Amino acid sequence: MKTIHLIGIGPGNPDQVTLEAVKTMNTVDVFFMLEKAGRGKDELLAVRREILERHVSHPHRVVTAPSPRRNREDPHYAGGVVAWRDERIDVIGRLIDTELEDGQTGAFLVWGDPSLYDGMIESLVLLKARDTLDFEFTVIPGITSVQALTARHRIGLNRIAETITITTGRLLEDVAAESVTNAVVMLDSRAAYHRFAETGHDVYWGAYLGTPDERLVAGPVAEVAPVIDAEIEAGRARHGWIMDTYIVRKPRTEP
Amino acid sequence: MKTIHLIGIGPGNPDQVTLEAVKTMNTVDVFFMLEKAGRGKDELLAVRREILERHVSHPHRVVTAPSPRRNREDPHYAGGVVAWRDERIDVIGRLIDTELEDGQTGAFLVWGDPSLYDGMIESLVLLKARDTLDFEFTVIPGITSVQALTARHRIGLNRIAETITITTGRLLEDVAAESVTNAVVMLDSRAAYHRFAETGHDVYWGAYLGTPDERLVAGPVAEVAPVIDAEIEAGRARHGWIMDTYIVRKPRTEP
Ligand SMILES: C[S@@+](CC[C@H](N)C(=O)[O-])C[C@H]1O[C@@H](n2cnc3c(N)ncnc32)[C@H](O)[C@@H]1O
Ligand SMILES: C[S@@+](CC[C@H](N)C(=O)[O-])C[C@H]1O[C@@H](n2cnc3c(N)ncnc32)[C@H](O)[C@@H]1O
Repeated sequence: MKTIHLIGIGPGNPDQVTLEAVKTMNTVDVFFMLEKAGRGKDELLAVRREILERHVSHPHRVVTAPSPRRNREDPHYAGGVVAWRDERIDVIGRLIDTELEDGQTGAFLVWGDPSLYDGMIESLVLLKARDTLDFEFTVIPGITSVQALTARHRIGLNRIAETITITTGRLLEDVAAESVTNAVVMLDSRAAYHRFAETGHDVYWGAYLGTPDERLVAGPVAEVAPVIDAEIEAGRARHGWIMDTYIVRKPRTEP
Repeated sequence: MKTIHLIGIGPGNPDQVTLEAVKTMNTVDVFFMLEKAGRGKDELLAVRREILERHVSHPHRVVTAPSPRRNREDPHYAGGVVAWRDERIDVIGRLIDTELEDGQTGAFLVWGDPSLYDGMIESLVLLKARDTLDFEFTVIPGITSVQALTARHRIGLNRIAETITITTGRLLEDVAAESVTNAVVMLDSRAAYHRFAETGHDVYWGAYLGTPDERLVAGPVAEVAPVIDAEIEAGRARHGWIMDTYIVRKPRTEP
C-alpha cells in the first residue's frame, strides 16, 4: 500500500501553511511536482521549493513531470477539461506506480486549498476508481487565495444575512450583473468586473496575494476599473502572467 | 497607537493553525476572549487555551469578558444581530481601552477564518469608525470549517464549470430545493437538509470537524437524513451543543 497526501500550501506566502501541513510534509518520501508549461511556471515552482527548504527536514526526493497541456485557454470549458484531466490522471498514475515503493508516502503540494477550483482531488478519486493501483490518499486543507483577499482588505466574505457565491469569470457571463449581491470571482481572464460599472457595485481586488508582489485595489467599480486594468497590464508586463481574485458587492444601506 | 490582530485559528484542531498565526500570536501581549454563555462555551475556550499553551512562548496575559447575549436563537435575523453587534463593539472598545497600553499588541482568536460568518472584522471596522480609540488592526486567515469538511470527505467545493454557494440554514428556506446544484450550509439549527430528500440531492455532512469528536456522514439525502438526525441528537446529548456543516449537491452524469 502507498499513501498520497494532497497538501494545501496556501496562496503564495510560505508562512501561510498550517502546522498540520508541515507535519505531514515531514512524513513524505517523494514530492511530486507537475510542471505547467508557460507563464508563472517558475514562480509557482519556486514557492513550492521554498516551502520544502524552509519547513522540511525529513529526507525526501522531488520528482517533477510535465503536466499535460490543455488545448483551450479557458480552464472552465467542461469538455476540454475532461480530456486534459484524463491525461493528467495517466501521468499521476505513472508517477505513483514507478516513483513510489510499497509502504512509501508521496505528496502533491496544491496551491491554496485543494477543494477550491483545483482538479487534484478528483484526479485521485478517478485514479482509485480505475483500480489499477493500490494507494490511499488524504487531503490537508490550506488557506485559499479568497481568504488572503478578504484578510488583506479586512472584509467579511458576506454581510449579515447574505449568501456567498464563488464563481469564475466565465460563469459570471451567464448572470445578469444587477442580480449579483455578493460574489467572489476567480479564474477571470476577461476582466469581467467591467460588467459591474453601471450597476453601482464595489470591487475588492487583489493580485499575487501573499507574495512580495501583492497588489490591492478597492472602491466603486465605476471608479477603480481603470486602475485594475492598469494593474493587470503592469503585472503581466513584469511577471509575464497574473494571478488575481476579486469580490464584487452591491453596496447596501446598513440597518 | 495600539495594534489588534484578528487571528483565524481553524475549526478546532490545534495543528490547523498557520505558521503566520503562530508567529503573530508570539508578538501578542494580551489575548482577549469573549465568553459566550451557554452551550459549547467551555469546549471552545479550551481549544483556544490549548492553542496558546502549545504554540505561544511569548509572555502574555489572557483577559476574558462576557460576550453580550443575543435575544434570538437565530443568528441571522438581521435586526437582532445589529443590536447585539453594537453592544459587542462597546465591550471590545472597553477591553482595548482599559486592558492594553499604548504600543502594546492585543489579539482575538477567531474560530475558523475571520471572513466566514463571524462578526469580528465588522466590529473592529465599526469601532474604528467611532473614532474614539487609536488602534490599528490586521486579519490573519485561518482554515474554515468548510475546508475541514471537504478535506475529510475528499471532495471539491464544486465540480467542473460550477458555482459555489455558501449559505445558512435560514437563508436556504427562501430558495426552491430543485434550484440548488451545489451549496455549503452553515449555522443550520433546523435540519434544512431534509428539504433535499425528494430532489435526489447528495449530502456531505460533518460535525465537530478537526476535533477528536469529529463525525462524518455522506450519501443520498433520502437515505442518510435519518442517520444525520441521529448523529445530531447523539452529539447534543453528549456535548450539550452541536457544531455542524454540510454540502448538498445535485448528482450529475459526468461528461
Ligand atoms: C486554479 S485556481 C486555484 C485556487 C486555489 N486552489 C486557491 O485555493 O486559492 C487559480 C485561481 O486562484 C486565484 N489565485 C490563486 N492564488 C492567488 C494569489 N496568490 N493571488 C490572487 N489570486 C490567486 C486566481 O483567481 C487564479 O485564477
Ligand atoms: C459563526 S459560524 C463561524 C464559522 C467559522 N468562522 C469558520 O470559518 O468555520 C459557526 C458555524 O460554523 C460551522 N462550524 C464551525 N466549526 C465547525 C466544526 N469544527 N465542525 C463543523 N462545523 C463547524 C457550523 O456550521 C457553525 O454553525
